[in-house]
Amino acid sequence: MPATHAARRARLRERLRAADLDAALVSNLVNVRYLTGFTGSNAALLVFADGATSDHAVFCTDGRYDTQSATQVPDLERVLSRACDLALTARAGTDGVRRLGYESHHVTVDGLKALREQAPEAGFGTLARAVEALRLTKDDTEIALLRQACAYADTALAEMIAAGGIRPGRTEKDVARDLENRMLDLGADARSFETIVAAGANSAIPHHRPTNAVLAAGDLVKLDFGAECGGYHSDMTRTLVLGEPAAWQREVYDLVATAQRAGREALAVGADVVAVDAAARSVIAAAGYGPQFSHGLGHGVGLEIHEAPTLSALGAGTLAGLTPVTVEPGVYLPGRGGVRIEDTLVVRDDGPELLTLTSKDLVAL
Amino acid sequence: MPATHAARRARLRERLRAADLDAALVSNLVNVRYLTGFTGSNAALLVFADGATSDHAVFCTDGRYDTQSATQVPDLERVLSRACDLALTARAGTDGVRRLGYESHHVTVDGLKALREQAPEAGFGTLARAVEALRLTKDDTEIALLRQACAYADTALAEMIAAGGIRPGRTEKDVARDLENRMLDLGADARSFETIVAAGANSAIPHHRPTNAVLAAGDLVKLDFGAECGGYHSDMTRTLVLGEPAAWQREVYDLVATAQRAGREALAVGADVVAVDAAARSVIAAAGYGPQFSHGLGHGVGLEIHEAPTLSALGAGTLAGLTPVTVEPGVYLPGRGGVRIEDTLVVRDDGPELLTLTSKDLVAL
Repeated sequence: MPATHAARRARLRERLRAADLDAALVSNLVNVRYLTGFTGSNAALLVFADGATSDHAVFCTDGRYDTQSATQVPDLERVLSRACDLALTARAGTDGVRRLGYESHHVTVDGLKALREQAPEAGFGTLARAVEALRLTKDDTEIALLRQACAYADTALAEMIAAGGIRPGRTEKDVARDLENRMLDLGADARSFETIVAAGANSAIPHHRPTNAVLAAGDLVKLDFGAECGGYHSDMTRTLVLGEPAAWQREVYDLVATAQRAGREALAVGADVVAVDAAARSVIAAAGYGPQFSHGLGHGVGLEIHEAPTLSALGAGTLAGLTPVTVEPGVYLPGRGGVRIEDTLVVRDDGPELLTLTSKDLVAL
Repeated sequence: MPATHAARRARLRERLRAADLDAALVSNLVNVRYLTGFTGSNAALLVFADGATSDHAVFCTDGRYDTQSATQVPDLERVLSRACDLALTARAGTDGVRRLGYESHHVTVDGLKALREQAPEAGFGTLARAVEALRLTKDDTEIALLRQACAYADTALAEMIAAGGIRPGRTEKDVARDLENRMLDLGADARSFETIVAAGANSAIPHHRPTNAVLAAGDLVKLDFGAECGGYHSDMTRTLVLGEPAAWQREVYDLVATAQRAGREALAVGADVVAVDAAARSVIAAAGYGPQFSHGLGHGVGLEIHEAPTLSALGAGTLAGLTPVTVEPGVYLPGRGGVRIEDTLVVRDDGPELLTLTSKDLVAL
């Protein structure tokens, strides 16, 4: 991967030169990983704009990661310090950087003050999410990791259903752990996030943390979960029903499924993110359930489970090709239950590629 | 718990009045939890200084948490908005707040700019980690949760060892998942952090992520793990050896154990955090292994796995009573192996209370 990381740093340099910055201090750890491959919990990266031919950059981590970083970041000068951002800012100052780009969406107010003290002669300018902008569009390797992560989730759910793992008498926690263990057994590095299993009335809580509540006949059971693979996160929600669905359950399910399809079909290169959200939301609103769809339609996924772009009425911008996103409308009826259906897809020129392949037909167990 | 949270808000108001702030915008989610009991993933809190008799405060979360927040935060005015910090800052502006305290160690540079736009007439001043200062000293309920979290970890390790779970042929990942599943089976809400299991030469990597590396006879096996209980985190490291320890393994183990004891014995109300670090570090340095102890001695634990105070040469300040901290020296010999021994303890007037009760004698399996 060193060549991939070097190419990413080269693209960052183009943005630095366009913004008249001499160097970039990258302190958001996910961005450091994207630009170097380093997976530890403390690091920063200084990328000089003048590295057109030489990949001029300095990597910093602390002593705990000396061995690991030597393996993962063999291609860059390494320095060891506990306060990586401060050490690299001081280095920028001594190396004559006049204008240092920093991540103003990530660096705190106190943090910027401390950086300025390390390089009192330098001016500081925002990087304006330059690395996040590079991360929007994924390459084949990244999409392959996402595809694998989604496959772990698909297979784990299929195996758990086949084994009778979703049944009256089990608790939400039982089901969540069963699902997580199956993803790990299949080879996932980790779960993407804390698995949501919400049964009965709890399914009306969009972000419910699994409890000891026992699944019962007639319950809607909402499962929102994912696997991590090589740093990349899958995200999928399915809602099942235990026993024969009641009329209201089928009605809400069909409505959400129709809205979710409309959202997926609105995914296109150049589509406005607000319009994509509206494509699904208008279906639910027309049925009179607008207020019961109380969150955005979806979000980007990659090295973070939630990343740009945001598909919602509050979002801004248009979709780029090769951008993985979720589409996840829901309708929640407090005290009764809720339905959410979510896929992870990749926006492509020839239409979205579905990565989460589990059926969206209503499953009655 | 509403009375506990109201009392915490009252203590925050004393600090606001001392700092001449009219209100506090608390946007650090852990601090919001501490002051309200809310456990969701998006929230903020506005605490007015003038609430000496009325607990004048406004809580904000988004629509996903309408139901949950009604249950968890029944005692405060609630507003729903996706951008909680912006909504509450606007509210502060319309309610006539002249000087608004904000968390300058948490709010980003871009974030402060957005806040200022919501309340253009207000002045902004730092809260200077006021809530973190309140959190340093734990009450009986908090310590009981930490004690329970530590007990889950102790019991899980004991049961795993008794079941032969640490043996040649298993992978690091196998052992990590076994340990985590046992903690969850015992009743832990979650693991405190990603469990570290590092065998053989990997044990020389202080923060090693478990791999498919297979445990072998003669290996040091380092386990760093913890359980979460009611939001509180335990943290413990033990290092075992598979088979009869080699002379160098016993030497390093005894050295680290001696240093760890010195660190524990230095814990006292009023002790300087640099001196506590030095008490353990000097033992290791005197034996010639100073450079091989490449991290700080310990850290506070509570609602976060790493919180104030920092016990290290770079720390500052003295220990307060009823403050839980870790003591975790280590010696790491690249290519050979490493030993770390870590306890969670509570600083008390009559000497530290040990919460992690697993024996620190060298265990040979």
